[in-house]
Amino acid sequence: MKSDTTAFLTLVEAALAEDIGRGDITSEAVIPADAEMKGFIHAREPLVACGVAHAAQVFYQVDPGISCISHAVDGISVAAGGPLLEIAGNARSILLAERTALNLLARMCGIATLTRRYVEAVGGTQARICDTRKTPAMHRATDKHAVVTGGGCNHRMRLDDGILIKDNHIAIAGGVSEAVKRARDSASHLMRVSVECDTLEQVKEALEAGADVLLLDNMTPDMLSEAVKFASGRALTEASGGVTLENVRTIAETGVHYISVGALTHSVRAADIGLDAYVE
Amino acid sequence: MKSDTTAFLTLVEAALAEDIGRGDITSEAVIPADAEMKGFIHAREPLVACGVAHAAQVFYQVDPGISCISHAVDGISVAAGGPLLEIAGNARSILLAERTALNLLARMCGIATLTRRYVEAVGGTQARICDTRKTPAMHRATDKHAVVTGGGCNHRMRLDDGILIKDNHIAIAGGVSEAVKRARDSASHLMRVSVECDTLEQVKEALEAGADVLLLDNMTPDMLSEAVKFASGRALTEASGGVTLENVRTIAETGVHYISVGALTHSVRAADIGLDAYVE
Amino acid sequence: MKSDTTAFLTLVEAALAEDIGRGDITSEAVIPADAEMKGFIHAREPLVACGVAHAAQVFYQVDPGISCISHAVDGISVAAGGPLLEIAGNARSILLAERTALNLLARMCGIATLTRRYVEAVGGTQARICDTRKTPAMHRATDKHAVVTGGGCNHRMRLDDGILIKDNHIAIAGGVSEAVKRARDSASHLMRVSVECDTLEQVKEALEAGADVLLLDNMTPDMLSEAVKFASGRALTEASGGVTLENVRTIAETGVHYISVGALTHSVRAADIGLDAYVE
Amino acid sequence: MKSDTTAFLTLVEAALAEDIGRGDITSEAVIPADAEMKGFIHAREPLVACGVAHAAQVFYQVDPGISCISHAVDGISVAAGGPLLEIAGNARSILLAERTALNLLARMCGIATLTRRYVEAVGGTQARICDTRKTPAMHRATDKHAVVTGGGCNHRMRLDDGILIKDNHIAIAGGVSEAVKRARDSASHLMRVSVECDTLEQVKEALEAGADVLLLDNMTPDMLSEAVKFASGRALTEASGGVTLENVRTIAETGVHYISVGALTHSVRAADIGLDAYVE
Amino acid sequence: MKSDTTAFLTLVEAALAEDIGRGDITSEAVIPADAEMKGFIHAREPLVACGVAHAAQVFYQVDPGISCISHAVDGISVAAGGPLLEIAGNARSILLAERTALNLLARMCGIATLTRRYVEAVGGTQARICDTRKTPAMHRATDKHAVVTGGGCNHRMRLDDGILIKDNHIAIAGGVSEAVKRARDSASHLMRVSVECDTLEQVKEALEAGADVLLLDNMTPDMLSEAVKFASGRALTEASGGVTLENVRTIAETGVHYISVGALTHSVRAADIGLDAYVE
Amino acid sequence: MKSDTTAFLTLVEAALAEDIGRGDITSEAVIPADAEMKGFIHAREPLVACGVAHAAQVFYQVDPGISCISHAVDGISVAAGGPLLEIAGNARSILLAERTALNLLARMCGIATLTRRYVEAVGGTQARICDTRKTPAMHRATDKHAVVTGGGCNHRMRLDDGILIKDNHIAIAGGVSEAVKRARDSASHLMRVSVECDTLEQVKEALEAGADVLLLDNMTPDMLSEAVKFASGRALTEASGGVTLENVRTIAETGVHYISVGALTHSVRAADIGLDAYVE
Repeated sequence: MKSDTTAFLTLVEAALAEDIGRGDITSEAVIPADAEMKGFIHAREPLVACGVAHAAQVFYQVDPGISCISHAVDGISVAAGGPLLEIAGNARSILLAERTALNLLARMCGIATLTRRYVEAVGGTQARICDTRKTPAMHRATDKHAVVTGGGCNHRMRLDDGILIKDNHIAIAGGVSEAVKRARDSASHLMRVSVECDTLEQVKEALEAGADVLLLDNMTPDMLSEAVKFASGRALTEASGGVTLENVRTIAETGVHYISVGALTHSVRAADIGLDAYVE
Repeated sequence: MKSDTTAFLTLVEAALAEDIGRGDITSEAVIPADAEMKGFIHAREPLVACGVAHAAQVFYQVDPGISCISHAVDGISVAAGGPLLEIAGNARSILLAERTALNLLARMCGIATLTRRYVEAVGGTQARICDTRKTPAMHRATDKHAVVTGGGCNHRMRLDDGILIKDNHIAIAGGVSEAVKRARDSASHLMRVSVECDTLEQVKEALEAGADVLLLDNMTPDMLSEAVKFASGRALTEASGGVTLENVRTIAETGVHYISVGALTHSVRAADIGLDAYVE
Repeated sequence: MKSDTTAFLTLVEAALAEDIGRGDITSEAVIPADAEMKGFIHAREPLVACGVAHAAQVFYQVDPGISCISHAVDGISVAAGGPLLEIAGNARSILLAERTALNLLARMCGIATLTRRYVEAVGGTQARICDTRKTPAMHRATDKHAVVTGGGCNHRMRLDDGILIKDNHIAIAGGVSEAVKRARDSASHLMRVSVECDTLEQVKEALEAGADVLLLDNMTPDMLSEAVKFASGRALTEASGGVTLENVRTIAETGVHYISVGALTHSVRAADIGLDAYVE
Repeated sequence: MKSDTTAFLTLVEAALAEDIGRGDITSEAVIPADAEMKGFIHAREPLVACGVAHAAQVFYQVDPGISCISHAVDGISVAAGGPLLEIAGNARSILLAERTALNLLARMCGIATLTRRYVEAVGGTQARICDTRKTPAMHRATDKHAVVTGGGCNHRMRLDDGILIKDNHIAIAGGVSEAVKRARDSASHLMRVSVECDTLEQVKEALEAGADVLLLDNMTPDMLSEAVKFASGRALTEASGGVTLENVRTIAETGVHYISVGALTHSVRAADIGLDAYVE
Repeated sequence: MKSDTTAFLTLVEAALAEDIGRGDITSEAVIPADAEMKGFIHAREPLVACGVAHAAQVFYQVDPGISCISHAVDGISVAAGGPLLEIAGNARSILLAERTALNLLARMCGIATLTRRYVEAVGGTQARICDTRKTPAMHRATDKHAVVTGGGCNHRMRLDDGILIKDNHIAIAGGVSEAVKRARDSASHLMRVSVECDTLEQVKEALEAGADVLLLDNMTPDMLSEAVKFASGRALTEASGGVTLENVRTIAETGVHYISVGALTHSVRAADIGLDAYVE
Repeated sequence: MKSDTTAFLTLVEAALAEDIGRGDITSEAVIPADAEMKGFIHAREPLVACGVAHAAQVFYQVDPGISCISHAVDGISVAAGGPLLEIAGNARSILLAERTALNLLARMCGIATLTRRYVEAVGGTQARICDTRKTPAMHRATDKHAVVTGGGCNHRMRLDDGILIKDNHIAIAGGVSEAVKRARDSASHLMRVSVECDTLEQVKEALEAGADVLLLDNMTPDMLSEAVKFASGRALTEASGGVTLENVRTIAETGVHYISVGALTHSVRAADIGLDAYVE
């Protein structure tokens, strides 16, 4: 997992540079260079923990002398007031890293917590909750990690790791059959071909053309059920569009294999957490 | 503004790389290299436009041959169905840029729209709505731009462009007076000194020590009114902590100069927008 | 195709820096700054042209004032003495770019020419010639482009765009069935699962476990025929290991869908080309 | 040697990124994160070892926890089946680095082995075998290191570390004498001036103009002998153009000091090596 | 202080690359790879030490095996012949780093020494000696550190950490009042507003407009005294322009708070230091 | 000269980033975004112009819309008050670039002016004035360009473009003869071998060992004359150490070919120049 790790270290470095500029002029003026401090990052509301190790890395990158003890592994439920991360070390260094670490951790916990609610809502069905590519710039990896932490699964990480023929592709290619045929001819033989379908006619056409996966977009539960029936044994099915906590179970009960939810990452509510520090 | 521009171009480049990897294997398989397309990015709900030029830049960076016509300057209110950006050019290029551009634009419109609601809520008072440093990594500049677009103003961009003595600084320094004194002694003579106060005692101590700005954290409206009275003519005042659309007007009516709201950027709901493309 | 283009520009920039250092001290001493020259890059042996546009880009990156006229599109056969690229412009600039451009072009023509011979050798069978990941550092994209130019097709570009379970994966997972099962469970639903098989037992086990593609490694033609029979209608087949121009047709006639050849890129013979310049 | 080392680390980092992308999705799916493995990289044909330490560095850069034991220092002859590098550590990490390490090592051994054959072919003469600048992008340093390992010596590393007046320089300058004069006037007084000569007339002119080194290009053995005689005691001599294992000794026996061979690096045959892993 | 440290490490890396290129070809030819050496960097004239730790970092960055013992902390006065830094380790590595380390150290000592003379010249007055932004590219941080070491204080580090309205701003804005008003309206409430004044009229206008700091440019001592009187209790004062060691005390005695001196960094005389090495 | 140009553009970009940070907060507050201005950079003392085109590049890099007209080519003498560069364009952009451009130009003019004085001091002798590697980090190229502009010539640009055996090399190698021999054996045959000599005995030993260039360090004029006599017709000679404007002619009259002067670049006095702007 070298490259993901490298990418994360680079993101942290860039985020710190973005937040710090040439230095924390307040701490440099007010806090002695050798002052020490300790503290806990606490949950201030119930949440699914995610990113504690990532936050620890932020502190470490600022100053390898900061010691961090994790109190919550990814995926564990934490009550309001529960500890997430214990921190001790040079005071200037801790305060330098604080905001960057909290921003990251609050977002990741927020995503994992929301994903968990979706996953619980479809409990007992075969459906799996997926994310999308609707992530803020540079947050693809950490946002998607938080989805997995919450019990969801990941859709494409990037445009190069899956073939997904969407409405515009179909329109330009001149139809579902032609689009699927082109994909099958020129794409790598190691990849499946998935197609977005808006109607049952497209579902049938896609199946006949040999599609491996059907992305059923903005269909009613009845249409979904029908499409699932057609596809049975021939292709995987995935529902998308307008999914909410209210309607997700109904969608799941149509029998689709996957349900993708953009809001998991494009409309995050940061979890309420804070660094409670104390000076000895 | 060169450096901000440069930073944005770099962010777009990184975001595209993150989303694309080595290429859009679907479009390369399905769409002829020379196919053209046109389309509009529309608002799908009422919103305050923000970032249309930023989104256009994404398309331009992918392919300078794409032509973009902006239909909404920053800050304008757009009704559901209203156009934001018109796009025409090479089909593969447009689809390559689509997700990155939409992610950015949806977030910026979301922030501007929410900020506008806060600003309207305090209309007629002297209070100005501020953001915080609670932004996802690499989004500091665009998030803060969206806050200004919505009518808010910016707090510190980074740790190096303002002196803000917070609770931990005070604890380590051994009190408000000592902290303010140290800041005044060693910081640049071109900067003011601001101090976070949790109690009225701290307010008095800070004023006596010569603080220029008071950050009144988590105070009740009554406490805020009292603090504002003490500070009158001697220091600027700013309220923070637990601010919502419901309570922001009450806070504003205490007479504080600034109200900072973390949720503007840490809990964004992406505006509902989409690219409606058509093939001629 | 932005990102591939960007990667190529970056490679050219790095290659020029590697070859030039701080400048061409000979030309700076001997040739006036404003001297002009013209020239042709010619084939000095029969070859399949590949990379002429890439070479032109090298000249352009050194000096946008150099004009290049391509005389050979990718994939065309050129006789000994035939022209590939015509160049005119500042003499110092042309000489500065010459070696980097020729190194690249000679390699790409060499790969395309050799690939063409393999493709011709299996003419009339269903088998397609594939490359491997055995490319020198930083040449993955251009080497694989040359393979396609020669009529071959590309295997994985990187470790992240295909699932290929090899002998070591099987050994560590504890068998073909278990390895395929794990891949099917946790990998993206947009990808096929391919497995390397060294024996016919493994072929059967892989098919039962639901593998989508079988990589038949170092099998005799008889074994290949047998494996192809088993897999018929259930999985794609690919032969690899010890493939030469002498035995490739026999392998193709076993009915495998793909034949991968490492030597296409790991043992390249540069095509014999040269820049014949003249001063007017 | 810091900067060469730094350049190599950067190349390895880039090569790994090129091969891995965002991760090895096969290993992540199939192999437990904490699985360990061991293995040997063996020679599968007789070769001159070169680059074993470089390959070890690739493993180390992926994961500093991988332990590597070298079994073959640069320049040693290894029989078919002989061990080159012993590796132990995390299985995912080893498989992540495998292809990049093997690609590099196979190329370096291939170059060193071929160079050794040329050096042996001129054994007992005064002639030294040189490389050229005909190396794939980013392989200048490792390719040239392999030439030295095989017993050859290096010509210019880059355009900035030697003055070599070639045919085009002469044509533009208006003759050998003028070109040599210009080089002598403006180049650093710490450098020699070398000139490419195609005829014996040019040899004489170059010597009269005070050239320090003559590059005798595409001359017959008789011409070479003549040129060596003229230059004796006045300039060093070097033969180039069309050198093969068949004719190199005849060339050496003309008395030239250096013979440069482009094929050493532009037409490499990768040595046959492989990683034989075993699970305990 | 992470980011300053990071910036320094990057500068050292770039400086080494600039000085070394692909390697020290002399040492590689003449000195065995494992030769060791020891040495002292000595002052060859009386100076104020500054940058010894920076120089040590250069050696460390070339080779972490080099051991450095500092003999002079920043700010201490060293007599001619006194030791600054003791060095021991690999001979090639030490010679590789030598020039870069000496260039940096000689400059920093030169600046600190000159600053000390200015500070001593105003001893007993309230005036503090400041630097300017007149530093060679990439030396802002180290030059300003040397000024502090010599007893001076720092003016703006960059254009983004202070508001300083200069003559051109005033001309374009249409007067001092308007310029100050605009700055007060749109700049961060955490910053003071400073204004350059060339005349006493401007001083009065600036004070009335609410400026916090007055930069008194090229005024005679009499004018300075007058301006200081006007500003008393209302704004800080700073003198600049044509300051020399001869006139600085007279200026200080006018009562200004700050005196800024461009020559501290734009016209540095490198301190005379050298590496005296010995071989055991 | 691509790479030097590239390096300069990179330096300017870094210098601007260093000076600007996230933007010029003063101009953004005070000057309208579309305000225009014009101005001249004037000499405020007699100087040798150098770097006017470099300064223009700084303005151009900030904003390609700024127009610059050069009034002084490199090497021309300019009287006090004479124009160097005329600038017109967006006011914010010009002020953003001003300090970076002036810092660079003042330094380059300063170096060229001082070099000219040294060159004039040795007028009529055969001696040429050389620089050294004593340049601030990242200024090697521009400082050395200024030396050439002033009439001097360049010594090594970097450690990799010349062989110069110094005292420490000799001590470690065990003597002048051994050091020269090693250099001759392993260094490129395209380079000369130069040796630092402190005594006449070393001069003789170096000549016998076949050195091509003698660096005569800290010798008296009498010793220099003697050394020149010995070396006549066998090696080039260069004097270094303690060279001043007072003693340089005496040194030149000993007959040495080169005289190197560290102060040309390590103790620069910035030329007095300024941007005189006017608003229309």
